[in-house]
Amino acid sequence: MATVVEISDPADPRLADYRDLRDVELRKHLEAEHGLFLAEGEKVVRRAVEGGFTPRSFLMAPRWLDGLADVLATTDAPCYVLSEALAEEVTGFHVHRGALASLERRALPSVAEVLADARSVLVLEELIDHTNVGAVFRSGAALGFDAVLLAPRCADPFYRRAIKVAMGAVFTMPWTRLPDWYDALPDLSAAGFTTVALTLAEDAVPIDEAVAGLDKVALVLGSEGHGLSPRWERSADRRAIIPMRQGIDSLNVAAASAVACYVTARR
Amino acid sequence: MATVVEISDPADPRLADYRDLRDVELRKHLEAEHGLFLAEGEKVVRRAVEGGFTPRSFLMAPRWLDGLADVLATTDAPCYVLSEALAEEVTGFHVHRGALASLERRALPSVAEVLADARSVLVLEELIDHTNVGAVFRSGAALGFDAVLLAPRCADPFYRRAIKVAMGAVFTMPWTRLPDWYDALPDLSAAGFTTVALTLAEDAVPIDEAVAGLDKVALVLGSEGHGLSPRWERSADRRAIIPMRQGIDSLNVAAASAVACYVTARR
Repeated sequence: MATVVEISDPADPRLADYRDLRDVELRKHLEAEHGLFLAEGEKVVRRAVEGGFTPRSFLMAPRWLDGLADVLATTDAPCYVLSEALAEEVTGFHVHRGALASLERRALPSVAEVLADARSVLVLEELIDHTNVGAVFRSGAALGFDAVLLAPRCADPFYRRAIKVAMGAVFTMPWTRLPDWYDALPDLSAAGFTTVALTLAEDAVPIDEAVAGLDKVALVLGSEGHGLSPRWERSADRRAIIPMRQGIDSLNVAAASAVACYVTARR
Repeated sequence: MATVVEISDPADPRLADYRDLRDVELRKHLEAEHGLFLAEGEKVVRRAVEGGFTPRSFLMAPRWLDGLADVLATTDAPCYVLSEALAEEVTGFHVHRGALASLERRALPSVAEVLADARSVLVLEELIDHTNVGAVFRSGAALGFDAVLLAPRCADPFYRRAIKVAMGAVFTMPWTRLPDWYDALPDLSAAGFTTVALTLAEDAVPIDEAVAGLDKVALVLGSEGHGLSPRWERSADRRAIIPMRQGIDSLNVAAASAVACYVTARR
């Protein structure tokens, strides 16, 4: 059972995991260095713990204690309880879903482990926006994808905002980082996947044609701004486009990935 | 040619249109009462003016003047120029895309005008999140939809954040508000559209089956949280679902609308 600790001083050093949550750069360093991540909101906190992640601590206003009592019963981590005003002072924003948890990251699995039973895989090169990373995980999970691989520079799926948008799909969907950016797609081809890059390249074919009849597929997405790197665009087995209205040449990456996942899942 | 006005006092009353842009409630009132909307970023400002909307004024740091010179040449509205630090003081946030414009809203067209040449229409009941409204407009425009109808309580597509996410699609896509919520869908059916509600209802059929072979279609989307109202769910001609993996029962509304638009556009 978690130990409830009432907090009256926002400078209390035990709250270090929860400081300045709006400062993205600070948080990226702090969370990586300390091997932690933050879950926000009752539903997401619950899914993180149910997903087997070890809580370091919880932080919440008193009114959230009852709703999370069953989750708190499963752990010995401290639960810091404080008013919403104090919580806002510590975190730097209004914690409107009321509950936060800091949890231990786990070592990432190998690419081979992630691919072991996978037939449909998403590969993200350099998505910058945590919201988009979370959205891709959520759509991929809902639409039948089995795993996600991230290039070294893709934004962190365990960043608070990504976790929240993914509605916890980052806890259940197997994922890891690709160790080698340059040969990532040829390596996937060698592992039996047909790599299909979503791109506006001139030789791109409509996505439904690109994936028709394929067995193992790796769907490859680039960044929000400039799309895929030339290396990834050219080293993919196929290039595919989502057909769009004349004069319009782009969809938001989250929307594009949802459409591409839907089409690919029904190949 | 716009008159360039250098600003040194952040309290200057001529900047009233640009105050406190992060205060959503304040902005909703201010913009509705004054019949204005805000465009943010060089590309979006340009698209608003090219879309025929009349600028009330512009506000930008000096370095954006050159890039927008051709746009400024088309209007007599004042262009307030100030440092980025002062701009931040006025607006309440870091204006990282550098240029803002305040423009006049236009009277909304009638439903009949919006539907006149339309074959594929999106109908949004009560989306709360401006980001989602913008995303639906962008995906709808890209994937071949002709118009958007909004229930009385749907979030405003001309709110700054919605415009930005839509990448200006709110300026080119015909849209209006439905005057009557209760009979909105039967009215659309009477106008020759098959109304297809996206829902998790038990009698929902897969979206591709629901729209197969239809001529005029109105695709109906509910709110982020509770989905469609019972009235709209039951008064639609058909109920449709995007098939999802066992155990997962929801997609983000922006992702769901992208998939549904893609499938419907190819009916």
